[in-house]
Amino acid sequence: MFQAYLLYINNWTDWSSSDTPFLIVSISLCIFEVLQSVMAETPIRFGILGCAGIARKLSRAIILSPNSTLYAVGSRSIDKAKKFAAENGFPPSAKIYGTYEDVLDDPDVDAVYVPLPTSMHLQWAVLAAEKKKHVLLEKPVALNVAEFDQIIQACEANGVQFMDGTHWVHHPRTAKMTEFLSDTHRFGELKTVHSIFSFAGDDDFLKNDIRVKPGLDGLGALGDAGWYCVGAILWAFDYELPKTVTAFCGPVLNEGGVILECGSYLQWEEGKTATFHCSFLSNLTMAITALGTTGTLQVHDFVVPYEDKSSSFTTVSQIGFTARALPSQHVVTTDLTQEASMVTEFSRLVKSIKDGSSKPEAKWGSLSRKTQLILDAVKASIDNGFELVQVEA
Amino acid sequence: MFQAYLLYINNWTDWSSSDTPFLIVSISLCIFEVLQSVMAETPIRFGILGCAGIARKLSRAIILSPNSTLYAVGSRSIDKAKKFAAENGFPPSAKIYGTYEDVLDDPDVDAVYVPLPTSMHLQWAVLAAEKKKHVLLEKPVALNVAEFDQIIQACEANGVQFMDGTHWVHHPRTAKMTEFLSDTHRFGELKTVHSIFSFAGDDDFLKNDIRVKPGLDGLGALGDAGWYCVGAILWAFDYELPKTVTAFCGPVLNEGGVILECGSYLQWEEGKTATFHCSFLSNLTMAITALGTTGTLQVHDFVVPYEDKSSSFTTVSQIGFTARALPSQHVVTTDLTQEASMVTEFSRLVKSIKDGSSKPEAKWGSLSRKTQLILDAVKASIDNGFELVQVEA
Repeated sequence: MFQAYLLYINNWTDWSSSDTPFLIVSISLCIFEVLQSVMAETPIRFGILGCAGIARKLSRAIILSPNSTLYAVGSRSIDKAKKFAAENGFPPSAKIYGTYEDVLDDPDVDAVYVPLPTSMHLQWAVLAAEKKKHVLLEKPVALNVAEFDQIIQACEANGVQFMDGTHWVHHPRTAKMTEFLSDTHRFGELKTVHSIFSFAGDDDFLKNDIRVKPGLDGLGALGDAGWYCVGAILWAFDYELPKTVTAFCGPVLNEGGVILECGSYLQWEEGKTATFHCSFLSNLTMAITALGTTGTLQVHDFVVPYEDKSSSFTTVSQIGFTARALPSQHVVTTDLTQEASMVTEFSRLVKSIKDGSSKPEAKWGSLSRKTQLILDAVKASIDNGFELVQVEA
Repeated sequence: MFQAYLLYINNWTDWSSSDTPFLIVSISLCIFEVLQSVMAETPIRFGILGCAGIARKLSRAIILSPNSTLYAVGSRSIDKAKKFAAENGFPPSAKIYGTYEDVLDDPDVDAVYVPLPTSMHLQWAVLAAEKKKHVLLEKPVALNVAEFDQIIQACEANGVQFMDGTHWVHHPRTAKMTEFLSDTHRFGELKTVHSIFSFAGDDDFLKNDIRVKPGLDGLGALGDAGWYCVGAILWAFDYELPKTVTAFCGPVLNEGGVILECGSYLQWEEGKTATFHCSFLSNLTMAITALGTTGTLQVHDFVVPYEDKSSSFTTVSQIGFTARALPSQHVVTTDLTQEASMVTEFSRLVKSIKDGSSKPEAKWGSLSRKTQLILDAVKASIDNGFELVQVEA
């Protein structure tokens, strides 16, 4: 559009004087567009609430993201915040705050990334929204759906973008896998999904990590690793919710009652099913197997690819009872890491809201809510003797 | 040993006359060993009961097996038997019979392969054992454990070898995978296993195959595909039985009540678990994923490898919280197909029994019984509203 105006100005000699009022309007529009263009080049300024280990990864992602910048960090200890900023590539001009509130009160902070323990999400995500900050919130998004609904309502009421910190759905590999699952010829109709996310926490992790503390991340392995499994299953089912959820009996809990390992069975209509296994006690495994009527998809590193710039998945399509089909490996390359892709998409949405061209994209909150809803159902099934739980959106 | 005797004879001139009684004993032993050697070169003669599709594969395996030979085939229709023999590489001297009994009454038949529908196993496997024929029985071995116990008792009472027709456990790849699962450093302690065996039956299969007929193979997909999943799980657990079995709700049954698709959750002590999914309605998939505390094993074609002579599996071992380990692919080559390996091992055992050097190997019947026991528990759980079933050996 701006180029069109330049062309218009170059052709000045062709204008008759009767065009003058039109010219003024045009020049005004032109100035507006230039301003827009300058604004478009201003990256979204992130403030980070807290100095959790996971925030290191996101800081790097914000640096890598072309439309985002590290602007502020707040911690309950200003020394910790200083150290974090120094170690994680914050520019010298970055604001260092000794409270989370200060980050939210800084008028130049566009968006906050919230890597605080899950039990603190409700308070800080709601307050951030009320301060008109766009919210990128770590998963699990809340201790339960009721809490999450307050967060999402605060975001909606204040016109800010919400997104949770699930990276893998932003990887271009995921888009390629979605293409395969949507292919009625190569994959057919989805029948069942199995997903695993496990890693073996060492003694220190199992004793001290916030994810095993009842007061902090009460959902334990279910909220942390299980979040990805449930997300993978919902993604494969194009976010159609299951009718029922039944947790497997015998989950492993620690002394504080936090889940260290569990699994569940999900059921849709017409014999469609899924199972998952999440654990802090088994070797690092990040697998999705999706079976359709004519195809199978397998990926072994869906949460974090083995390599940043190149990753793969495997498909097999068996059309009819002919010669046996062999598996195909699909390699997807990318310049941005999946975390940087996520940040870039979030900042793109924030920018559209800031320049008035779009309203917040509701999709991301909706996907987070569905995932949280299933986590809640699994937890309810565990708490009720592994009974079948009806899922109600 | 026979070569040692030849050496002894060559050194004849060194013997003193006082050795003569010893010489006579030695020569007798020598003749016995020669006879044994001739016998050892006589392949085990197989009779096949019935002309089922699956018998084609086994006929080829018997031809490929160096210590086995196709000797007889019996069918209720002698024309079918003739046609089957002509099409499946039987030698011109092969005996063609118009009844199964005739095969069992032929004194030169050493062993029978029984590919009849499951509902006929009890009658014909027991009769074969009573006629002193060694029994290679297709899976599932029986309609339930009570039936199978009659079969195994008949085999034991008559001193004949029993083995079921599960090929994959005889593949050298399986031995390599067992090595990995037994490696306390690379794999650690087994935590969970997930197995899938599915294939998409076409309309003809789903209408007419014996595996979907209530009167023939009553266990349907559970007895057919599920047999492999349960076997894979038990194999990974070194055949330790689970404490409980809970079938997933919502299995797909056909109009005759035969299972077309189902799954189940198995539980051991100390948080050890397994799940499986078996189906006639999903794309061909044959997967095992086994998670240990330090390693993960994945194989995608465990039931029938993509290639006869070369197959692979993947492992990842993550020792400690260091740099992320990358997966290793292990390729195993073999000259014999897995079916021919199975037949060769069966014939080796039969030969040892025939020459009096061994008694029947009880291991194979024991593994079949454990697999059948779990199938029964899954079926009982399905029949009882998906309740948890205690497994009692």
